[in-house]
Amino acid sequence: MAQPWILDYDPANCAVGAAVDIIGEKWTFLVLREVFSGVRRFGDMQRRTGAPRQVLSDRLSRLVHDDLLRRVPYQEAGQRARHEYRLTPKGRDLYPIMVALMHWGDQYATGHEGSPVVLTHRDCGAPVHQRLSCDVGHDLTSPREVTTVPGPGARRIA
Amino acid sequence: MAQPWILDYDPANCAVGAAVDIIGEKWTFLVLREVFSGVRRFGDMQRRTGAPRQVLSDRLSRLVHDDLLRRVPYQEAGQRARHEYRLTPKGRDLYPIMVALMHWGDQYATGHEGSPVVLTHRDCGAPVHQRLSCDVGHDLTSPREVTTVPGPGARRIA
Repeated sequence: MAQPWILDYDPANCAVGAAVDIIGEKWTFLVLREVFSGVRRFGDMQRRTGAPRQVLSDRLSRLVHDDLLRRVPYQEAGQRARHEYRLTPKGRDLYPIMVALMHWGDQYATGHEGSPVVLTHRDCGAPVHQRLSCDVGHDLTSPREVTTVPGPGARRIA
Repeated sequence: MAQPWILDYDPANCAVGAAVDIIGEKWTFLVLREVFSGVRRFGDMQRRTGAPRQVLSDRLSRLVHDDLLRRVPYQEAGQRARHEYRLTPKGRDLYPIMVALMHWGDQYATGHEGSPVVLTHRDCGAPVHQRLSCDVGHDLTSPREVTTVPGPGARRIA
């Protein structure tokens, strides 16, 4: 079998690796899931994710530090000021990752009851799916139709 | 602010959570990245991911156990029989997750050199992108156009 070309290249600046360094951790994904579902408050997240308080606090701080979430103050009558968490543009751009995780989980991991959450088009109500297409406009139905090639940031191993 | 509807539902069978339980760990993502790039052998994966031997061995066993990878034997002249790792159909269906991670990493985490790897359409050579569309055929350009609704597997909290 021919060697894959990628073996001649340095994996150090891989985009998947870089993304995973920032978000590739179970609690981080669960926090992001909550925020994408509209859950913004610490107590709600803690109850829903089951994350230990310190772990949740740590992951939220990291997500704020990495500019995926921002803190927005709020205050309810008779209570002290608190803050809730909202997605930044950089965080909102994680959406395709969350959708892909959800669809795969629906297919392989949620059991026979079916999807607990369905994504629909706001304007027409039809279910929403992810697809791959090329800049010319062809739809791709399988990973086999994709060829990976070295990009501008590829570094050959000396 | 109105409470998000999801707070009335049980997060226990969430698809994202289920997916993340299986693949939500840094080394697991890196192993999958390698396999999707055509890297199939233990030594190559070890060198490219930098995973400690025991960690890599453990993650590969878990991926085989969860039916994302399968072991295929091979033997080179004068060497003992070994096996390499290939994606199962369930593993191959992780592809949209890997593509989404890669695109986000390209945008936010790989630096100014640009993408180290580019996905192109095998048949026409044009770059490949992920899109959201609904079953009626509308293209969605923002998460704001998506409405999440409870699905058949949603369980209200008593």
